[in-house]
Amino acid sequence: MTAARRALGVCYYPEHWDEALWLDDARRMVEAGLTWARIGEFAWSRLEPEAGRLEFDWLDRAIDTLGSAGLKVILGTPTAAPPRWILDRHPDAVIVDADGRARKHGSRRHVCFSHAGYLAECRRIVSFLAERYGRHPHVAAWQTDNEFGCHDTVISYSDAARRAFQDWCARRYQSAEALNRAWGNVFWSMDYGDFGQIDLPNLLVAQANPAHMMAFRRFSSEQVARFNRAQVEIIRRHSDAPVIHNYMGRFLDFDHFQVGADLDVAAWDSYPLGFLLTRLGDDEARCARYLRQGDPDAQAFHHDLYRAVGRGRLWVMEQQPGPVNWAPWNPAPLPGMARLWAWEAFAHGAETVSYFRWRQAPFAQEQMHAGLLRPDSADAPALAEVRQVAAELTDMPEAGTAQARVAIVFDYASAWAWEAEPQGQDFDYFDLVFAIYRALRRKGLSIDILPPETATLDGYRVVLVPALATLPEPLSAALAGFGGTAILGPRTNAKTSEMSLRVPLAPALPGLDTVVARVESLPPFADVPLADGGAFRRWFEHLEGRAEVVERTREGRPAMVRSGGLTYLAGWPDDVALDRIVARACADEKLATLDLPEGLRVRDTATHRFVFNYAPEPQDFEGVALPPAGVSWRPL
Amino acid sequence: MTAARRALGVCYYPEHWDEALWLDDARRMVEAGLTWARIGEFAWSRLEPEAGRLEFDWLDRAIDTLGSAGLKVILGTPTAAPPRWILDRHPDAVIVDADGRARKHGSRRHVCFSHAGYLAECRRIVSFLAERYGRHPHVAAWQTDNEFGCHDTVISYSDAARRAFQDWCARRYQSAEALNRAWGNVFWSMDYGDFGQIDLPNLLVAQANPAHMMAFRRFSSEQVARFNRAQVEIIRRHSDAPVIHNYMGRFLDFDHFQVGADLDVAAWDSYPLGFLLTRLGDDEARCARYLRQGDPDAQAFHHDLYRAVGRGRLWVMEQQPGPVNWAPWNPAPLPGMARLWAWEAFAHGAETVSYFRWRQAPFAQEQMHAGLLRPDSADAPALAEVRQVAAELTDMPEAGTAQARVAIVFDYASAWAWEAEPQGQDFDYFDLVFAIYRALRRKGLSIDILPPETATLDGYRVVLVPALATLPEPLSAALAGFGGTAILGPRTNAKTSEMSLRVPLAPALPGLDTVVARVESLPPFADVPLADGGAFRRWFEHLEGRAEVVERTREGRPAMVRSGGLTYLAGWPDDVALDRIVARACADEKLATLDLPEGLRVRDTATHRFVFNYAPEPQDFEGVALPPAGVSWRPL
Amino acid sequence: MTAARRALGVCYYPEHWDEALWLDDARRMVEAGLTWARIGEFAWSRLEPEAGRLEFDWLDRAIDTLGSAGLKVILGTPTAAPPRWILDRHPDAVIVDADGRARKHGSRRHVCFSHAGYLAECRRIVSFLAERYGRHPHVAAWQTDNEFGCHDTVISYSDAARRAFQDWCARRYQSAEALNRAWGNVFWSMDYGDFGQIDLPNLLVAQANPAHMMAFRRFSSEQVARFNRAQVEIIRRHSDAPVIHNYMGRFLDFDHFQVGADLDVAAWDSYPLGFLLTRLGDDEARCARYLRQGDPDAQAFHHDLYRAVGRGRLWVMEQQPGPVNWAPWNPAPLPGMARLWAWEAFAHGAETVSYFRWRQAPFAQEQMHAGLLRPDSADAPALAEVRQVAAELTDMPEAGTAQARVAIVFDYASAWAWEAEPQGQDFDYFDLVFAIYRALRRKGLSIDILPPETATLDGYRVVLVPALATLPEPLSAALAGFGGTAILGPRTNAKTSEMSLRVPLAPALPGLDTVVARVESLPPFADVPLADGGAFRRWFEHLEGRAEVVERTREGRPAMVRSGGLTYLAGWPDDVALDRIVARACADEKLATLDLPEGLRVRDTATHRFVFNYAPEPQDFEGVALPPAGVSWRPL
Repeated sequence: MTAARRALGVCYYPEHWDEALWLDDARRMVEAGLTWARIGEFAWSRLEPEAGRLEFDWLDRAIDTLGSAGLKVILGTPTAAPPRWILDRHPDAVIVDADGRARKHGSRRHVCFSHAGYLAECRRIVSFLAERYGRHPHVAAWQTDNEFGCHDTVISYSDAARRAFQDWCARRYQSAEALNRAWGNVFWSMDYGDFGQIDLPNLLVAQANPAHMMAFRRFSSEQVARFNRAQVEIIRRHSDAPVIHNYMGRFLDFDHFQVGADLDVAAWDSYPLGFLLTRLGDDEARCARYLRQGDPDAQAFHHDLYRAVGRGRLWVMEQQPGPVNWAPWNPAPLPGMARLWAWEAFAHGAETVSYFRWRQAPFAQEQMHAGLLRPDSADAPALAEVRQVAAELTDMPEAGTAQARVAIVFDYASAWAWEAEPQGQDFDYFDLVFAIYRALRRKGLSIDILPPETATLDGYRVVLVPALATLPEPLSAALAGFGGTAILGPRTNAKTSEMSLRVPLAPALPGLDTVVARVESLPPFADVPLADGGAFRRWFEHLEGRAEVVERTREGRPAMVRSGGLTYLAGWPDDVALDRIVARACADEKLATLDLPEGLRVRDTATHRFVFNYAPEPQDFEGVALPPAGVSWRPL
Repeated sequence: MTAARRALGVCYYPEHWDEALWLDDARRMVEAGLTWARIGEFAWSRLEPEAGRLEFDWLDRAIDTLGSAGLKVILGTPTAAPPRWILDRHPDAVIVDADGRARKHGSRRHVCFSHAGYLAECRRIVSFLAERYGRHPHVAAWQTDNEFGCHDTVISYSDAARRAFQDWCARRYQSAEALNRAWGNVFWSMDYGDFGQIDLPNLLVAQANPAHMMAFRRFSSEQVARFNRAQVEIIRRHSDAPVIHNYMGRFLDFDHFQVGADLDVAAWDSYPLGFLLTRLGDDEARCARYLRQGDPDAQAFHHDLYRAVGRGRLWVMEQQPGPVNWAPWNPAPLPGMARLWAWEAFAHGAETVSYFRWRQAPFAQEQMHAGLLRPDSADAPALAEVRQVAAELTDMPEAGTAQARVAIVFDYASAWAWEAEPQGQDFDYFDLVFAIYRALRRKGLSIDILPPETATLDGYRVVLVPALATLPEPLSAALAGFGGTAILGPRTNAKTSEMSLRVPLAPALPGLDTVVARVESLPPFADVPLADGGAFRRWFEHLEGRAEVVERTREGRPAMVRSGGLTYLAGWPDDVALDRIVARACADEKLATLDLPEGLRVRDTATHRFVFNYAPEPQDFEGVALPPAGVSWRPL
Repeated sequence: MTAARRALGVCYYPEHWDEALWLDDARRMVEAGLTWARIGEFAWSRLEPEAGRLEFDWLDRAIDTLGSAGLKVILGTPTAAPPRWILDRHPDAVIVDADGRARKHGSRRHVCFSHAGYLAECRRIVSFLAERYGRHPHVAAWQTDNEFGCHDTVISYSDAARRAFQDWCARRYQSAEALNRAWGNVFWSMDYGDFGQIDLPNLLVAQANPAHMMAFRRFSSEQVARFNRAQVEIIRRHSDAPVIHNYMGRFLDFDHFQVGADLDVAAWDSYPLGFLLTRLGDDEARCARYLRQGDPDAQAFHHDLYRAVGRGRLWVMEQQPGPVNWAPWNPAPLPGMARLWAWEAFAHGAETVSYFRWRQAPFAQEQMHAGLLRPDSADAPALAEVRQVAAELTDMPEAGTAQARVAIVFDYASAWAWEAEPQGQDFDYFDLVFAIYRALRRKGLSIDILPPETATLDGYRVVLVPALATLPEPLSAALAGFGGTAILGPRTNAKTSEMSLRVPLAPALPGLDTVVARVESLPPFADVPLADGGAFRRWFEHLEGRAEVVERTREGRPAMVRSGGLTYLAGWPDDVALDRIVARACADEKLATLDLPEGLRVRDTATHRFVFNYAPEPQDFEGVALPPAGVSWRPL
């Protein structure tokens, strides 16, 4: 169990406003109950208008104004928005996309993580900031960069990336022959004679070797970690304040566990309405129902995920307060949602929820993005809800999360593996994990998410490990010795670490006597019905072996098998099947479940049960009436 | 009221045919009742086969042949189809598209408006033509270029365009600091240190700054005007004949009012069937019903628009006579449509309707495009209808249009603004204006379209100003003093001239006590129902203020408010709501409306009421039976 | 009638496996009844790891091992997978795609057919192979390259292709003036002054001249033939074994008749399930029904087509044995299909059916592609079916095909013509031909496919020539003298050899008094109903002339006309109309037809009637009960 003070914050851009407004802004923030102000993360062109010409006076004054008013400052490094002169000095630093097109200045994040000159510039500006503010009394936390990878910028096909990838391959494989063997380059005469011949896997006429793809994805992810680490090392040299990064929703292009290992807290930016219509927008009926509330499980999932990434320490760095500007459509939240989202975060262990942003900027890209103030400085609707949360926090200031009884293992590399080789075009790792997460949450369960490096499963009763491409040895061992119900599959442990099929065949887990003899991917119009109801969609594996058959297809093939505590699932279950599978596992493990009305969700902390109504209609639960966007809690 | 002789014409390409055919062709044109022949606009490679080697003899003979037969010649400048040797002299003159790809010779319009060398070549060939034919007795009109912007060629991302845009910015903003301030470049550290750092807004990793986009769209539009003006100035030096350009349908990439200000007549190229399945093709049922007639309002809309662009003088330079080659499918018009379309044009004030083309060419890109003759020189079906119109014109040779009582303000810059920042992905300026236009026309109203620079609304009773991003001061003043019903919104006056939000908030019109406090864009599955029926789709604004509420949403929010003569509409009404809004405005202003059968349309001139049956079934109206494609008229 | 021994084979990659496995593999192949092993076609990087360093020893040993075990070897030239060092020597040899992007090493087929340096390298490696193995006792056949054009690689826009195309134009037209005249380049001033100005028809802003497109497609096709011929000439210098190429399904980018003229046998690679969901996947209900069987007519069509390409000699070089890896979804075949597909091939005259591949490779791109063995060397399900077919072949070893009574003329150039100028966006040549083929096969007919150069129709009673863009003179003459029923149209003979419309108008066939006066293409929601049932879809021609009207539209226009034995069809008939048209033609010619249950198919050889059940349910036919995937035969 972890516990920390709960607090509210806001993102603020002093450089956007006349300095005469700062003091009044700061006072209104404090008056509204806010504790934290995040600043600075896009201000490079104002901190260093020309290479080497530093202008930090305004930032000194801004921090003083905010701090003197009673706010703690989170200071962001400005490396996500390099100024135009960076390209004068490093014209080849720009990202090159999969089509071979060099990208341009004019928005943000257009520079390649692998470019040494850009990295040096970043080290320089971060050093200036850390030296100047590392011991500043009002600077109480740091943010590195901003939303690594936003706008699909993890992957670059630039010359800088190609050379760095060649080095990465040389370090990993030592010889071209070893690389050829590891990747199976004998196939189609793809062999390399030396590392300098290796190119990035874009612009091929046919699909790339999945081993090549997978190596490039691992490399690209590590470049992000390396970039972040360079900043953290500088900051830590000068400051003891926690160092944080703000991740995004449903973003899998780098291994957040790896980046998170270098940081003190994992924060994320939560935009429930924007995400619903973009990254989760495959179901029109769901989008219509939750248009102004957001998906009832998506925030919870990311809280659980990033709590794991933060090794227990979780923040929301940006919380949507009203309509945004970047989704295909941008409706307004239901009244009450700005409060509900905050409490959902706190119930999942968030220490701080920081709204984005203080005042809506009337200019540039995000002028249609709501803030807590309107552009004319009047209160926007969310501000009253912020005040309410602030008041409620005075009665319940501690955030505490207990270890859950149910866990899902989440693995970024598996997402890359199945992108490199989906086999069925709709086989999406996140979709599968999230479908299972939803099924668990429909039963009122509180869930932990575990990294693939997990070495012990103590305390859990039900653990799910879907589609984890390559089981690490410690996790395999933990599963083999697990006393609860572990559900693996489909596709779990199907691959070697070099993205080949296993021989002997998968899942290749000691104690689980089953073999995936054949694999089928299935179009949406050809499900495989199960004998007990529901069906497999998208994916079905033909199992052989002597494990006990727990579920069968209607045609009689094994659909789920079990040896001891290890269960293997041979396909992608639909919701009907998932509900049964979850119910059976919970019953086997004597875990209580709930039958929740559609749109109602529950989360238990160490001390309280929280209930959230995401439905657009009122709901009753355990004797409490919740209006739309209603939240209630009671002590456990 | 304007009045001019009505006439028919045809487009002819003497260079496509053996000279032996010319005389017979000319005689058959005259025999069919044609008055005008447009020639020359793609003949550059035959007028100047190599740089500086001029071959004008054949054109002399062609003009003589046509003129001697009794035809008046419209002579086109050939700059829309530069010959191949232009690229030998100016290899960098080609358009570069948004993906950074240099385009190639092999069709037409592949050259960048901003390229100085190309412009010089154009000046040269236009000078030769103007000098030779400026006082020619048979050359009675000029056409500059052909369909500016066809094939999406207004916008180019070439080096020539980039340099010209930097100059444009320097002239407009004088200093980089002023530009940074105007665009809000402090956001995301987008500041420029000098104008040479400014790039064109393509190939960014995230969206561009809408101010940057808007400046680039204005610049791109002005380059067209500048290109046209260069030709007009040369022609006018040598000729007193009217100078015309032939615009296209639903084409908004440049400001036609600005180009039109330099010309004597606005012409357009009317392809009702092709447009139905391309630029208006979002409604399958409508496409099925009007497949062989074209949209019943699209021609009318463009006649009204281009009559405004031509400051009263309107031509149809190319009229579809049969199946074309360029739509996704190319059906044949119903018998009678070649006549109906001509009369619809005349009823809207067209002086000349010129069919495209005389004889179907059996070769090259448009070999499947019908003409008045088949490739084997037999009459195509439309020729008999042309003869009928010619005969009818002898009884009604005068074209006169009266000022309408109803007007819509149309603004090209608003189309660019909402493309730069749609906020909802289906927010399309043309769609909104056209939906309103259709609603007016369903009520039998005759409509004027007004430019945004309009400074007086005298004579109008109902004026609609939807989504006009930035109200010019003279129009604001005219609206403030308007004695009829003016309906603004949604989004009207939402932006400053630099594409920022207004503070104080929009609509910021003196006398209209309402404020757009918040904006929502809505997906197709989430309309906002109105209390009196119908709904807002796509867009809904939350209004505050003390203006009288005329319409409410079913949930009780203001949907339309009024202070005096100024009405503000808070969303995008569906057809049910639009019909009510139009009916109420007309009732308030005591304007008579009609209840027209589906597909029947009416247009009143100064002297006559014209009735057109676009429906595929016969219709009765005011005691007259109209077959499909039927036209009738009676004196007013 | 042709006759040859029927046999089975398999594709094998000794370089993929430890040499210790080879002998056991060879013995198991022979034990399973396989006769042939194809090897070598992707082994270049192992045969020549660096330029000039040859390593053929392993191949010697592999051939010896296979041959000694009793197998005949088909040796493939490895030119489809050039090693990485080829690009070190010829960096500009890569394909440039239509977007102007140079493609990369990392898969296969990324090199341009027009590149002289690559061609020289290919000649070199083929010479080494032919010299070494040309008289080898175990090398009993040769395969040139592999699947010419796979991954859309026939067409390249590289500099090498451009220069070669300019030469091709110079040879064909002799002067730029002649080319301008032939293509109609006067249109839009597209004239060229010399051949060096001619560019490839990509990256234009508007559509290309169809004559330009057509010339480029002819050129691109000829480059493939030239490339193949270079290899054949070398092999024939050293070997008397038959030379074969393995074509693909529904692949039209080069003229297979032209390539086939240089070869001894036409082979193709048959992947019924993969094709169903990709190249034939427009009908979801059909895909659902035949998901695990493949389209019931697609294999038959290609057998008939390639039998023509092979001038009677047909092989299946790669036969799908289980799920593949490259379709959007990859289900498993129904039990029995690996046998059914083989018998369908034999019934159409195939001499050899060779399965792809022996053992599933656990690495690289195709690791999810099934083989006859699993990756762990256990039998995959298809192996038992292979054994069954091998046993059945001992009773019926001879393959013989009789000339059919019904024929369709198939013309690759027509596919290019209608791609260059579809006129309606869904006018697809293959779709039309295949729709007619299906209608014939629904009636139980056995069909021959004829090349456009066919000069005699002796022996046929019904011949269909749909949409053949330009009728060659010998075929015109054969049709004029044909005693049976010939059905032409729509679009047949619409074009000159230079892709212009004909004047006098098409179809311009002596003896057929009809003229296509006008053409309409139609969207899916606007069919033209026929008086006797069914409708024209997509395409409808207005006919004039005195030919007898056999069918009319419901509105009374001619839909099918006849003069003597020549029938002209004025549109694209739906299945209802096609069934009637086929039935009438067969009745007229006294050809027996069958009424087959949905999914049952029949094929007659010279000696036997074969019946195949593609349906997922059992069927009875002529007293025989066939389970799903069932095959039966009886002597005729």
